[in-house]
Amino acid sequence: MIDRIGISLEKELLERFDELIEAKGYENRSEAIRDLIRDALVQREWSRSAGNEEKVAVVALVYDHDSSSLAQKLAHLQHENYGAVVAGLHVHMDEHNCLELLVLRGRAREVLSMGEGLAATKGVKFGKMIPATTGHDLR
Amino acid sequence: MIDRIGISLEKELLERFDELIEAKGYENRSEAIRDLIRDALVQREWSRSAGNEEKVAVVALVYDHDSSSLAQKLAHLQHENYGAVVAGLHVHMDEHNCLELLVLRGRAREVLSMGEGLAATKGVKFGKMIPATTGHDLR
Amino acid sequence: MIDRIGISLEKELLERFDELIEAKGYENRSEAIRDLIRDALVQREWSRSAGNEEKVAVVALVYDHDSSSLAQKLAHLQHENYGAVVAGLHVHMDEHNCLELLVLRGRAREVLSMGEGLAATKGVKFGKMIPATTGHDLR
Amino acid sequence: MIDRIGISLEKELLERFDELIEAKGYENRSEAIRDLIRDALVQREWSRSAGNEEKVAVVALVYDHDSSSLAQKLAHLQHENYGAVVAGLHVHMDEHNCLELLVLRGRAREVLSMGEGLAATKGVKFGKMIPATTGHDLR
Repeated sequence: MIDRIGISLEKELLERFDELIEAKGYENRSEAIRDLIRDALVQREWSRSAGNEEKVAVVALVYDHDSSSLAQKLAHLQHENYGAVVAGLHVHMDEHNCLELLVLRGRAREVLSMGEGLAATKGVKFGKMIPATTGHDLR
Repeated sequence: MIDRIGISLEKELLERFDELIEAKGYENRSEAIRDLIRDALVQREWSRSAGNEEKVAVVALVYDHDSSSLAQKLAHLQHENYGAVVAGLHVHMDEHNCLELLVLRGRAREVLSMGEGLAATKGVKFGKMIPATTGHDLR
Repeated sequence: MIDRIGISLEKELLERFDELIEAKGYENRSEAIRDLIRDALVQREWSRSAGNEEKVAVVALVYDHDSSSLAQKLAHLQHENYGAVVAGLHVHMDEHNCLELLVLRGRAREVLSMGEGLAATKGVKFGKMIPATTGHDLR
Repeated sequence: MIDRIGISLEKELLERFDELIEAKGYENRSEAIRDLIRDALVQREWSRSAGNEEKVAVVALVYDHDSSSLAQKLAHLQHENYGAVVAGLHVHMDEHNCLELLVLRGRAREVLSMGEGLAATKGVKFGKMIPATTGHDLR
């Protein structure tokens, strides 16, 4: 079932939003706003989660492959809870730098601490944990 | 000046959004949506700042694999500029939902528009473009 | 504990094997032969498997992404037993062709029939199932 | 003319090989090993046939992640010719073992020697290079 709601906002904000909508290729405002809402719900589910629910997160890391102590530390962190790392994608950016994407899945608490631990490891140049969703409870 | 627009969305999504609004202490839906829009604009400003420089971005998508028209559309978007998609990692979340991670690399402008286009595709439940870095100019 | 065995073979075969060893970068003959033996054991474990043991296999597929009915069919085959597909790596080879690598894990019987089914799907230009191992019982 | 060489290998590996030999009906170890060598030579002939043409290959490696000197060596081999490694997929099999899939692309000669070097690295329990195709010249 579809509901229809009215939203009021400053003319200028709306104009800039309309530009964004066009640039991103959305078909209409409703679709763009639905996406913003879904995103906010995913973030909220994560932060509110008591810790035992199953969660999925993506971790993006850029680091220098030459530093073997760093590579070892990252491998060690993954091994401590290897069951939570579904898979990793590794791309060599140049002679030194790697981009590594990891899919983590498990209890919210573990996924969160593991993802943050990886992203915060000393020597990681760019580290980000993106709370995602299995999509199970989103339409 | 204040404009008023109408938004249509699934009843269930609205109910969950209303819970979020209450929990966060917003006075009404308009205020909450204005905040979501402002956040999206900030993100966009940031990533729009570049142009012809080489950029790397990660796109995370969650969608229902059963919808063949969606899968086709996503494949089509990737093919239009296939050189920019370094690789993709695909994980089946459950019987229906997939998590797809793409590494995009190319001119900032192209990477940006491609990543946003993928994330904004209708039917994508969770879509996020994360501007990353090759690490080249970071120590 | 290390055993030492003696092997007799034709001089010409040995010469060609030595070339192969050097080209592949093995340190010595023992190492090269140990690898051949391990490989043979992995193949054997697979073929001998009653069907219920846990197995890992890699499937490599090259196909034309434009053919949406093929992409759909491959997705469908993966969905029928989604739990067995650990992850997939997707690389766009050119405007049309994709290379897809899948890691399958599960009961030998299922992994085998799924891998062979994917590789044999009509329209797949190159399809190969490689019986692999979790490494658990190999030293 | 017949040569005789000595091979050293772990007692357990030898026992399992002896079982395999008996099951397959070989008369002795030499005969079984000669067959393994011939198979490897055939595979090599095939893949050596190319030279400067662009080729794609998949490398599958199973190894123990705990051995940091091995992980370092594999990373080093990939870095020497990083442009040829399109992407890698990493799956943790258990606390110790990893399955790594690499997509190599470049001149046949380089791809071949790199793939074989990776598969032959000491400590790799299961290493296989699978010559693939971009699909470009296949219908």
